[in-house]
Amino acid sequence: MKTQTHIPVSAYKSGGFIGRYQKLIRETVIPHQYKVLCDKAEDTEKSHVIKNFINAGKALRNQDTEDGFYGMVFQDSDAAKWIEAAAYSLAVNPDAELENTVDGLIDIIADAQDSDGYLNTFFTVKDKDKRWTNLLEGHELYCSGHMIEAACAYFEATGKDKLLRVMEKNAEHIYEKFIIGKTEGYPGHPEIELALLRLFRTTGNPKFLELSAHFLDVRGVDSRFFEKECKKRTWQVWGMSAPDTHYNQSYAPVREQKDAVGHSVRAAYLYTAMADMASQADDKELFAACKRLWESITQKRMYITGGIGSTVIGEAFSVDYDLPNDTAYAETCASIALIFFASQMLTNEIRGEYADIMEKAFYNTVLGSIQLDGKRFFYVNPLEVIPGISGEAQTHRHALPVRPKWYACACCPPNAARLISSFGRYAYGEDESTAYCHMFADGEVSFGNGIKLRCETDYPYGFSVKYTVKGSGRLAVRIPGWSEKYEIRLNRQIIQPENVNGYVYIEISHGDCIEIQLDGDAKKVYPSAKIPKLSGCVAVTRGPLVYCFEGADNEGDVISLSLKSDGAIHPKSCNSDALGNITLLETDAVRAEGVNEGLYSYIKPKLKEFTAVAVPYYTWGNRGENQMRVWMNER
Amino acid sequence: MKTQTHIPVSAYKSGGFIGRYQKLIRETVIPHQYKVLCDKAEDTEKSHVIKNFINAGKALRNQDTEDGFYGMVFQDSDAAKWIEAAAYSLAVNPDAELENTVDGLIDIIADAQDSDGYLNTFFTVKDKDKRWTNLLEGHELYCSGHMIEAACAYFEATGKDKLLRVMEKNAEHIYEKFIIGKTEGYPGHPEIELALLRLFRTTGNPKFLELSAHFLDVRGVDSRFFEKECKKRTWQVWGMSAPDTHYNQSYAPVREQKDAVGHSVRAAYLYTAMADMASQADDKELFAACKRLWESITQKRMYITGGIGSTVIGEAFSVDYDLPNDTAYAETCASIALIFFASQMLTNEIRGEYADIMEKAFYNTVLGSIQLDGKRFFYVNPLEVIPGISGEAQTHRHALPVRPKWYACACCPPNAARLISSFGRYAYGEDESTAYCHMFADGEVSFGNGIKLRCETDYPYGFSVKYTVKGSGRLAVRIPGWSEKYEIRLNRQIIQPENVNGYVYIEISHGDCIEIQLDGDAKKVYPSAKIPKLSGCVAVTRGPLVYCFEGADNEGDVISLSLKSDGAIHPKSCNSDALGNITLLETDAVRAEGVNEGLYSYIKPKLKEFTAVAVPYYTWGNRGENQMRVWMNER
Repeated sequence: MKTQTHIPVSAYKSGGFIGRYQKLIRETVIPHQYKVLCDKAEDTEKSHVIKNFINAGKALRNQDTEDGFYGMVFQDSDAAKWIEAAAYSLAVNPDAELENTVDGLIDIIADAQDSDGYLNTFFTVKDKDKRWTNLLEGHELYCSGHMIEAACAYFEATGKDKLLRVMEKNAEHIYEKFIIGKTEGYPGHPEIELALLRLFRTTGNPKFLELSAHFLDVRGVDSRFFEKECKKRTWQVWGMSAPDTHYNQSYAPVREQKDAVGHSVRAAYLYTAMADMASQADDKELFAACKRLWESITQKRMYITGGIGSTVIGEAFSVDYDLPNDTAYAETCASIALIFFASQMLTNEIRGEYADIMEKAFYNTVLGSIQLDGKRFFYVNPLEVIPGISGEAQTHRHALPVRPKWYACACCPPNAARLISSFGRYAYGEDESTAYCHMFADGEVSFGNGIKLRCETDYPYGFSVKYTVKGSGRLAVRIPGWSEKYEIRLNRQIIQPENVNGYVYIEISHGDCIEIQLDGDAKKVYPSAKIPKLSGCVAVTRGPLVYCFEGADNEGDVISLSLKSDGAIHPKSCNSDALGNITLLETDAVRAEGVNEGLYSYIKPKLKEFTAVAVPYYTWGNRGENQMRVWMNER
Repeated sequence: MKTQTHIPVSAYKSGGFIGRYQKLIRETVIPHQYKVLCDKAEDTEKSHVIKNFINAGKALRNQDTEDGFYGMVFQDSDAAKWIEAAAYSLAVNPDAELENTVDGLIDIIADAQDSDGYLNTFFTVKDKDKRWTNLLEGHELYCSGHMIEAACAYFEATGKDKLLRVMEKNAEHIYEKFIIGKTEGYPGHPEIELALLRLFRTTGNPKFLELSAHFLDVRGVDSRFFEKECKKRTWQVWGMSAPDTHYNQSYAPVREQKDAVGHSVRAAYLYTAMADMASQADDKELFAACKRLWESITQKRMYITGGIGSTVIGEAFSVDYDLPNDTAYAETCASIALIFFASQMLTNEIRGEYADIMEKAFYNTVLGSIQLDGKRFFYVNPLEVIPGISGEAQTHRHALPVRPKWYACACCPPNAARLISSFGRYAYGEDESTAYCHMFADGEVSFGNGIKLRCETDYPYGFSVKYTVKGSGRLAVRIPGWSEKYEIRLNRQIIQPENVNGYVYIEISHGDCIEIQLDGDAKKVYPSAKIPKLSGCVAVTRGPLVYCFEGADNEGDVISLSLKSDGAIHPKSCNSDALGNITLLETDAVRAEGVNEGLYSYIKPKLKEFTAVAVPYYTWGNRGENQMRVWMNER
């Protein structure tokens, strides 16, 4: 049973910090990404995704497909994620031109659907006979999943159901194939499971719930399925290793899985669907598995920035406590998926830790992936960058010191766009009488239960949050794990509601004003002594923001700095041309000087007092190549 | 022109520490390795190397080769390196049974040589038509090089020339092919260049000097040679990337190369030959290239242990200052090759730094590669090991926490055996009137110039060295770079000879006694501030020995320890069952305690005083799996 449900995206009208990001997505990212999809963006790798759909339509009509299919096997999903982002934007900011563009693209997509409901440009353009023969690598179910999400989002935003009908027909086709036709197998890349749950809720069609449950239930029961599938065919996409059942979480039935393993995006999409299904179907065994996997991630395999998947090899989780800073993979999509997972955990159980991690991943890894001007993106989010090594050494090729242009494999940018433009879904939730505030976000929100809130805050730089209430019921506000001290006022009177698992519950009436003062002190964070890479290190944070030290603010040299063990941290507001309105942290540090030219020396370096400046991690890499470090040595 | 030449192995009769290691090689390693070559060693991967030679002989006679060829394409070289090690052992310790065994093996090898002089079991057994068509991967020249070294060593040790004649004929065949026949190309794995120089000196045949010079001179002139070769054939060994010309140092002519790049063993074998040729041919341009490459290695790309090749990807050098501790490759063979390179630099120029590095690589990486009982070996020599991560994480698969059994690719163990049993060649050198002491080593040495020295020392644990002289001339003794203070007595009187580039020169007469007192203080070493992985770290050393901290001596937990910045280090002699007679270092440290169970915490850890115990790096991993760390955080 769901503890609470998500609110529609249209229910939250953002202001403040989130409002500015949503504006950036709306005004810069969505138009830029559409140009990319159309191959009209400069200095960008070819996408061809819209051409793929056009060509698939032609292939169905037996017309010449000209330039055929181009791109990754999952190229279709770029269009799906873009439509989803555009839909969320339209949900709160009507824009006839954008809606018209989306409608045109939907027409093209509808035209690429086969008469039986099949929809995938790779297989339709290249070879229809190979359909459904390579679940390991083929991404047919994955692409369908993303397009289902897009269809639901666009229907919710505009009431237009053309794409929804297309994807219902597609889902019926898949149901036919796997349920009626008893085709063996499950997706090589989980995603459709969570999409089908959403499609079920949007359409009410129980087949889609059944199909989602089917894919979750059969996964890993025959853990050699992909190996067998592999032997039946003579072609491959990349030649992915079928016996590596950890990579795609097929090594055991999902209810028996204990450690977060394998490709981190695959993993977190799967866990999201599991958590959603657990609350949807009131499946306690499934939820217990989700809890174990959540703990595996957050207690043993996650960066302080909410990054997950620490190794480039397989873009995957590594073993416990293996969290290298410089070779971190920490893919943007993986942190987005972690937010989805956390958000679905909150539909099972109201606990502050889920929202804490959601916020951590959002304000650090996800926002950090986007250049401040919205034009370039990190796929990989390291916690340390050293020009000359990062992006250069064989083991660091993936860890770039500045955001690259749009890639051929463009999973992350449109994923970040859809998340940010739907921020309200994750920040707020509701049940019949309660308004849940999981994350603080300036703006107005209208709940289905009749409560309306106006939230005023300068969060994440200001730490007072004021809610003005319309309607009545109960307000549930998360008290962040990082805010041990806080003060709550109801109509200017201090109140002390019990903190239940990280949330305070307040009865509210029309016209009430609730003011919350959180802890705005800058704080040092100490790593577990079990993380070898962080011995003797410390990081600095303020509120949900993790900070980092960049060369630009520290004489070009961060790696010779150590923070003083008893040193102070002074927050300082600043309006920087490059970084905008932010709060810097000035920290007491020492710089090692006098170390000789060679590699090793018996001469002890002199330590010189230095005021080191830290900036929010999400702003790093916006001033050209320079050193960056989150974890600093402490003396 | 050579500043000095090597002494024959037979000229040094070891005692003390080196004597014990040579005994271990003689009594345990050489017999064990022979068993491996014969596939008679238990718990060891199949070698088949002797069977390969037997089968090659059969193939030449068109007999059935039964079980054919087995092993790596360079399997022959295991036999060569073993013969070389055995020869060095025989040079000082006659052993009729061992000599008989070697003679038998040489008969088998001679039998495997084709009538034209060709000798390589892979191609002879598998496919004669493929000879010389894959210099990139085929290792024919590499294997010939090793067998030439073995032939010279065995001839020098025993006066027996059967293998020498075989290899002269083989070298003549190669001369015919590449000089007379003008076959294009050069070795994919340098090695024969240095071997041919030795063969030239052993036989006096100038063709071999010419052939060595040819291979050096043509290398990288056509940097696309391997690419072109690749296109001419339809088969491959592993499918090595021909365009990766850095991997095998073919990206530029050798005289133009600046940075040490690519596969580190290939690189250092090549540089060794270049340095040898530079002094042999008095080639100043070549020596200038050697100096640049030496500086690239020792000033930017070398571990404190003398390990080189910091990345597992291509077993290669990385970029400057990229020296990870836990994922270090630092192959044993690469440090052995670095010793060869250093030793050849000393034939060009007498400078203490060459011998300093030679000694550093020997006492730390090379000795550390061998289990103290001589039965297991490290190929990879990390500077940090954490059970659970090392050997387990995808990025750490190569960095094992304990020495593995003999591998199928068994390059390192016999390489270490031949180096240790020929230690005198590296420790001592001579010119017509000078006896050079590059490394301190208890025992007796007889120079070709008539000088004889008896050296008494407990080095590397004792720091007084006493030379008793027979004959007369000049003694050149290296004063190690780590011994800033030292005292020299000639017949009990303190003398103060000038220190010229790290050597003191003393006129000696028959009966003289020279006593040298070196600095036996334990010392902290500080890394360059340019090495990101070592920010705020310190290592402890004493004399040539680098120390490490193991769990076994430190309550099982090394990673929560920091050394105190102003803390003392106390050497303590100890006779340990597991580690033998060693000197421990007790160091003032603190342990971080009270860090909570999760990954990150706002609670500052308590620092508890702790006396941390360090053991010599070469003894690590002899007490089962446990944490090990060379570089410690400093507070």
